[in-house]
Amino acid sequence: MQRKIVLIGCGVVGQGFLEILVNKKELLELEYDFEPVLIGVADMMKGSILVQSGIDIPAFLSHLKEKGTIHDFPAEGAVVGLNSVDILKQADAEIMVEVTYTDIKTGEPATTHIKTAFERGMCVATTNKGPITLHFKELCKLAEQNNALFRYEGVVMSGTPIFDLLEYCLAGNGIKEIKGILNGTTNFMLTKMEEENMSYADALALAQKLGYAEADPTADVEGFDALAKVVILSNVVLGGAIKPSDAKERVGISGITIEDIRKAKAEGMRYKLIGSTRMEHGQIIASVKPVKLPLSDPLAGVGGAVNALTFTTDLSGAVTIQGPGAGRLETGFAILIDVLNMHREM
Amino acid sequence: MQRKIVLIGCGVVGQGFLEILVNKKELLELEYDFEPVLIGVADMMKGSILVQSGIDIPAFLSHLKEKGTIHDFPAEGAVVGLNSVDILKQADAEIMVEVTYTDIKTGEPATTHIKTAFERGMCVATTNKGPITLHFKELCKLAEQNNALFRYEGVVMSGTPIFDLLEYCLAGNGIKEIKGILNGTTNFMLTKMEEENMSYADALALAQKLGYAEADPTADVEGFDALAKVVILSNVVLGGAIKPSDAKERVGISGITIEDIRKAKAEGMRYKLIGSTRMEHGQIIASVKPVKLPLSDPLAGVGGAVNALTFTTDLSGAVTIQGPGAGRLETGFAILIDVLNMHREM
Repeated sequence: MQRKIVLIGCGVVGQGFLEILVNKKELLELEYDFEPVLIGVADMMKGSILVQSGIDIPAFLSHLKEKGTIHDFPAEGAVVGLNSVDILKQADAEIMVEVTYTDIKTGEPATTHIKTAFERGMCVATTNKGPITLHFKELCKLAEQNNALFRYEGVVMSGTPIFDLLEYCLAGNGIKEIKGILNGTTNFMLTKMEEENMSYADALALAQKLGYAEADPTADVEGFDALAKVVILSNVVLGGAIKPSDAKERVGISGITIEDIRKAKAEGMRYKLIGSTRMEHGQIIASVKPVKLPLSDPLAGVGGAVNALTFTTDLSGAVTIQGPGAGRLETGFAILIDVLNMHREM
Repeated sequence: MQRKIVLIGCGVVGQGFLEILVNKKELLELEYDFEPVLIGVADMMKGSILVQSGIDIPAFLSHLKEKGTIHDFPAEGAVVGLNSVDILKQADAEIMVEVTYTDIKTGEPATTHIKTAFERGMCVATTNKGPITLHFKELCKLAEQNNALFRYEGVVMSGTPIFDLLEYCLAGNGIKEIKGILNGTTNFMLTKMEEENMSYADALALAQKLGYAEADPTADVEGFDALAKVVILSNVVLGGAIKPSDAKERVGISGITIEDIRKAKAEGMRYKLIGSTRMEHGQIIASVKPVKLPLSDPLAGVGGAVNALTFTTDLSGAVTIQGPGAGRLETGFAILIDVLNMHREM
């Protein structure tokens, strides 16, 4: 079945998603009866295009690779020069994929894109943390009013599906606690410090060299990134309504020395930057801080730049999922699974 | 929405499932619009009952706890004395839950139960490894012919959902390899041997004392149980058609000494009994054997009587799920998630 899609944001993740659509074309059609038709693309830097009859995706990707621009892709009936909101207002699409950059302070322009899509009755898949952190309940309500579906699998662990895990694999369970390793950069650093006796400064420099950490590493090493994910989990999974400032604690790893790590190791323990949240007497108790875990904890064995979450449930006990927390194809996949599951339910 | 259910097998798992239905009644109705109506129960040892208008589940559980029998549960319009197949032939049910004991050599009587249910157009949820190991393709075909759904989430990792993970969370991925810890008993023993310097014999005796291992521990310690699960994964997930005897290797842990474990530890490695399978040039390569893993492997950190599986995928990289591999409520939950997901698709 054909599904008309508009893509807002055409950077690394957006292009990763389109590549997957090309490479998995046959599989998606045969196994899921899913035939994506891309009818519009808008990107702040690269321009926009609207072709109601559909864009040739492989040709579009080649053009983009060669020229770096969108508006000059040759297609019959193409409308160019529209901004992202006008594309959404004019496109006769069933699904919007929103993968613009994350602004965690305002949630814009992603939130406006999502609202516009819902108002036009489109279903929405996004990997953008901004709208989910800031406007989750409002957006869910708008989706419901417009009879639209809303998916955001990639906002916490990118390529590792956790919301679908809860929805389809752990349904019926009461979730008593969620805790995990939600920042790959700091987990990479802690692993290097323990395994290779690297100092904090050297581990940070290596993470920056490998592209895991930004030039200003504050968001990672001080726990702000992990906290944003804890807030999302608190609100989306546990039904809370908290802001980052409501967390009980937010401590990063910048105070952890190699001596702390050695001492923990001698005790048979290991430091991990743990984000956790639970509901207690109707109150969310959320925190991010370095925790010395016994090696028997499933999270203690999680090494390198990966993510992991343990769901403590009333029926299934503790279930832990571990996988990629970033990556072009991995995050592109998060969009794919959202689009596929919406397609199955539409 | 009401769903009429027949339960075949009313031992630990069957009763665990019924308890969950009682304890989660409100949640299931409110969140999933699911109102189970139990209309028949049959158990080889405890007798049977058929009440087309529905059985009061809490009262039934109390009766069973007190008397240990089924046929004498007082209910208006009850038909008693039928065997399990006749119950299936007469019950006007939409779903059969099959949780009789596993016979891995013949797959009976479970296979006959499943066939009878499909022929009557019922959907089937089972935790029984026998039919899935021996007759998977035939049963899938029969389900399709009768327009019935077929679920078996509990057959590999009981309380830890893996088939739903693949279906709903990793859809679109190519699965390059599956490997994991598929036997909790042997993983418990290896953990005790490493952490408490216990001999193989002492670890086995402790596992038997705690009820993890049988009096005859062969199926666990020689890898037969893990191999049965590897065969299921090969056939269900990778599309193979192998029997246990087609595996490349089946080696258990009985040859592993505490010296081997110490030596591995000194090298920064850890022994795990690993079941693995992959498709190579159209051929399934399946095995079960002790493998010395680097501590950085997600499976190396999995301690105690739990299970874990790593799926190596083409889009999401390596995704590992860890959780319970046995337990009354855990396995009862496996039935619940099957029934819920079928209910959503019916």
